[in-house]
Amino acid sequence: MKFRVAVHILPRRGILDPQGKAVTEALHSLGFAEVAEVHVGRHLAIETQADSADAARAAVKAMCDKLLANPVTEDFVIASVEAV
Amino acid sequence: MKFRVAVHILPRRGILDPQGKAVTEALHSLGFAEVAEVHVGRHLAIETQADSADAARAAVKAMCDKLLANPVTEDFVIASVEAV
Repeated sequence: MKFRVAVHILPRRGILDPQGKAVTEALHSLGFAEVAEVHVGRHLAIETQADSADAARAAVKAMCDKLLANPVTEDFVIASVEAV
Repeated sequence: MKFRVAVHILPRRGILDPQGKAVTEALHSLGFAEVAEVHVGRHLAIETQADSADAARAAVKAMCDKLLANPVTEDFVIASVEAV
């Protein structure tokens, strides 16, 4: 079966997020003064073959641990697993 | 009230996604042969003041239209709006 797995990778809380700070300031200068904070990370949509949704989730977790996320500076969340 | 709004920005379908292709190939060379396709986009977590969840969603939509997403090459989805 084919699954589409969505992953969010965000800078760990407390780690400097210069891209988020730049976006916050750009939004302020465009008039969006109500914005308090922005964090910028990556969103990955991974299409993969697996026997079950649990197997797809486990495979994507291994991919994040090995390649996709930096374990020192980033946290990842597997946001959804859906059959396609 | 303060809201945390999550936004996904992904390359539009059919537009070349070199980063996604590079990740797919890197996963293949690490032994994840079952991966068919990867799309890499951005995940934004925006903390903003608003009177209601609907107002927060509308404000973030305006931010995406004006600054955060490229209307020619990218699609964005407001994934969640939650009070914090």
